[in-house]
Amino acid sequence: MPTVEDVLERVIELVEPSEEEKKKLSEIASALLEVCRRKFCNIEGFVEASVEGSAAKDTWLRSKPEIDVFIHFSPTTSREAMEKVIIELGAEAVQEMGGRSRLRYAEHPYVEGFMDNITVNIVGCYKVSAGKWISAVDRTPHHTRYVVSKLTPRLRREVRLLKGFLTGTETYGAEIRVGGFSGYLSELLIIHFGGFLELLKSASGWRPPVVIDIEQRLSRREALALFTNSPLIVVDPVDKNRNVASAVTLTKLSEFILASKIFLESPSISFFTGGFTQKPNSLESLAENRELFVIMFRIDEYVPPDVIWGELRRSAAGIKKRLELAGFNVYNYGIDEREGSIVLAFELDKINLPSRFVHRGPPVWMRDAIRFVEKHLSSPDTVAGPWIEGERLYVLKKREETSVDVLLKRWISQGEVSISRQLNEAFSSSKMVAGWREVINMLGSGIHASFLARFLSSRPAFMEAFGRKEQA
Amino acid sequence: MPTVEDVLERVIELVEPSEEEKKKLSEIASALLEVCRRKFCNIEGFVEASVEGSAAKDTWLRSKPEIDVFIHFSPTTSREAMEKVIIELGAEAVQEMGGRSRLRYAEHPYVEGFMDNITVNIVGCYKVSAGKWISAVDRTPHHTRYVVSKLTPRLRREVRLLKGFLTGTETYGAEIRVGGFSGYLSELLIIHFGGFLELLKSASGWRPPVVIDIEQRLSRREALALFTNSPLIVVDPVDKNRNVASAVTLTKLSEFILASKIFLESPSISFFTGGFTQKPNSLESLAENRELFVIMFRIDEYVPPDVIWGELRRSAAGIKKRLELAGFNVYNYGIDEREGSIVLAFELDKINLPSRFVHRGPPVWMRDAIRFVEKHLSSPDTVAGPWIEGERLYVLKKREETSVDVLLKRWISQGEVSISRQLNEAFSSSKMVAGWREVINMLGSGIHASFLARFLSSRPAFMEAFGRKEQA
Repeated sequence: MPTVEDVLERVIELVEPSEEEKKKLSEIASALLEVCRRKFCNIEGFVEASVEGSAAKDTWLRSKPEIDVFIHFSPTTSREAMEKVIIELGAEAVQEMGGRSRLRYAEHPYVEGFMDNITVNIVGCYKVSAGKWISAVDRTPHHTRYVVSKLTPRLRREVRLLKGFLTGTETYGAEIRVGGFSGYLSELLIIHFGGFLELLKSASGWRPPVVIDIEQRLSRREALALFTNSPLIVVDPVDKNRNVASAVTLTKLSEFILASKIFLESPSISFFTGGFTQKPNSLESLAENRELFVIMFRIDEYVPPDVIWGELRRSAAGIKKRLELAGFNVYNYGIDEREGSIVLAFELDKINLPSRFVHRGPPVWMRDAIRFVEKHLSSPDTVAGPWIEGERLYVLKKREETSVDVLLKRWISQGEVSISRQLNEAFSSSKMVAGWREVINMLGSGIHASFLARFLSSRPAFMEAFGRKEQA
Repeated sequence: MPTVEDVLERVIELVEPSEEEKKKLSEIASALLEVCRRKFCNIEGFVEASVEGSAAKDTWLRSKPEIDVFIHFSPTTSREAMEKVIIELGAEAVQEMGGRSRLRYAEHPYVEGFMDNITVNIVGCYKVSAGKWISAVDRTPHHTRYVVSKLTPRLRREVRLLKGFLTGTETYGAEIRVGGFSGYLSELLIIHFGGFLELLKSASGWRPPVVIDIEQRLSRREALALFTNSPLIVVDPVDKNRNVASAVTLTKLSEFILASKIFLESPSISFFTGGFTQKPNSLESLAENRELFVIMFRIDEYVPPDVIWGELRRSAAGIKKRLELAGFNVYNYGIDEREGSIVLAFELDKINLPSRFVHRGPPVWMRDAIRFVEKHLSSPDTVAGPWIEGERLYVLKKREETSVDVLLKRWISQGEVSISRQLNEAFSSSKMVAGWREVINMLGSGIHASFLARFLSSRPAFMEAFGRKEQA
């Protein structure tokens, strides 16, 4: 088994850009900044343009070169005016640099561009002092300043190791789809713990909720009271009322804790490269006899990923709840989104309900007890009873419809499932398929095949690696 | 539809013995009493012999002629001595009367005899004043005196109607097998309410717990405090610390309440005759596709019915609990005992567990989390995972054995089922059969066939009658 040092030495090659790559990114950043300054200098409210994010902090991953250019406006500028010029001039700037651009939405719209394999973002913000935030991204320049003031060349390397580890273990990214660690959070963790291994050693002993406050602005108790229900609390050094880790879910934090434990015990480069390789030949044997149920539909208009993923998550939870109310046991479920095609996959204890069920009636002393008896005695779907147990009437009924796909469709059409209103139409007209063969037929090849393989394996990438090592 | 009066007029024929029958019972009772007095008069401690029970009170049902002869001993007599002479001389007395006798056990042994289609019981008791009870049956002569002092010819008729109704609705009998109304309780209810219909009208409005105190010795609050968990409390007029209805289960009381409601709304003679007729031809269609499971064994030595039924009830409840712990849903179960052959029948949601199940592991922050991962990654019965949800690890496992009969046998042998210790051996070597065809093959003909038909119908006799009326 390689030592941790062996592994990190190999990994650094993967995560640290070469001098040449750094030079190239730096040149493109300067050029883009120049173009932006020229474009925006005559716009009312424009204050300055700056490079932010991983490019400014020199913490970008070799595999993910990215440049964020922020256009700062005075606080008196209207949001509409700012958005309008960002959309127009941002796109022009990207085009002038020879890139392709497209419009994206987060809290407000921004321009995303691609050039020379580099992703660039042109974002508008307000130039404000700490605490006077107007829009959600106004803190970013303050974050950049803070991180730059704390990082050393060694710590930059450690940040890149951490980002590589988070990427490989699929815990990187604050978007709702992931619910993991943002770049800024990674940098703060390295600053706080002084290094990658130091962080992992600490994390392998964490028990949520975990509170980290680099600048010691809050007591643990204050932090827990302020950020209730956050499994990981990292107080923002530039704003003590903000939890930098607010996007981190308990599941992702737990995956990080476990990945840290396993890596320290059994270090491997696959924690950084992602250990999972799809084995399409074995899909059938993986799925055999499992009680699978899949919902599939398309969303063709553009919806910001955080919006769509929030709705998908809530809807999947609502479906799980309704299925369990009906007597299905939901073992596991997963969501996939590729090019507007959505899949929700469920593994159940069964895809058909029992053909009989006990219907609980009123206590005998209730006025309507005798009506219950009459009704069910003469009903053709009564199998047995009514009988009395304790003070209450029961009757065994035949269930006409038992299959999960038909039942769920019906419940959705009757408004009995808590799904996001925006997706109601999509779910109503969705394709629902139950049975492992049917699911493989539908998803076994095509854009969702890799998701299906991972759903059937239900194993974080870093564990696959651990497993293979164990067997070797 | 006949009126209540029509029905009762016809019923009285069934429940009231003819003058001739009464005369015959009375003569046999006198003769038996005479024989007993002669047999016991020289025995040390003997005080007197008396006729008790329904014969003494003239409340016996035409279909159930029965004579209880009580042999009273002085309180100084030892229990062993009393039991010994009852066993010996009681049997001699029955034989002298030309009857067959056998030994039975309740709290202490007594002699049961059969002659001229009449059942006789010869029972030993202590001659004590009220409140000085030594054995469980010492109150009986006091009960007889109380009831005789209160009954009129009209009330005797009403008692017989009630006993007929209780018999027909299967709520008659204080033995554990039934958990219903004793003869003495029936008499007290008629005395209290002044008639059969008056009782039924009251009962149809009962909501348990129900407190009845003829002599007004206790407040409702005192009675509820004294007889906690009794759904029906009828304070014994000869002993205010005793609940005459202590044997009545909530289920039987509820059946009585519902039967009262239905009878008053839809009177029919079948409430007195028992409406249920087995339809052996339709057993198959009744059982089809139902998830049935049966346990069958023999008990060949004599065990008092209350003992065996208590053990069977507790064991069935223990089995239900274990099955539900494993994920079976027990819809209903029933117990039958015929000539030493015991059957426990269960209707389930399924007779096989799902072939996969989710095994819940430790939270990731626990020391053994990594061992859990290692163990299940390398285990051949791991289907998927481990994965993390919230702070916890889960893994999907294959279940090698899924059928209820094999599983239950295993759990019993491993001591995981709360069954009566006396029956442990019987259950361990019992025959267990799952599947509706298999169950019909085993029980569809033979001594348990009628039980099986009733279990599959799961409908009190009085409801069958109601149902047929509804359909007519």
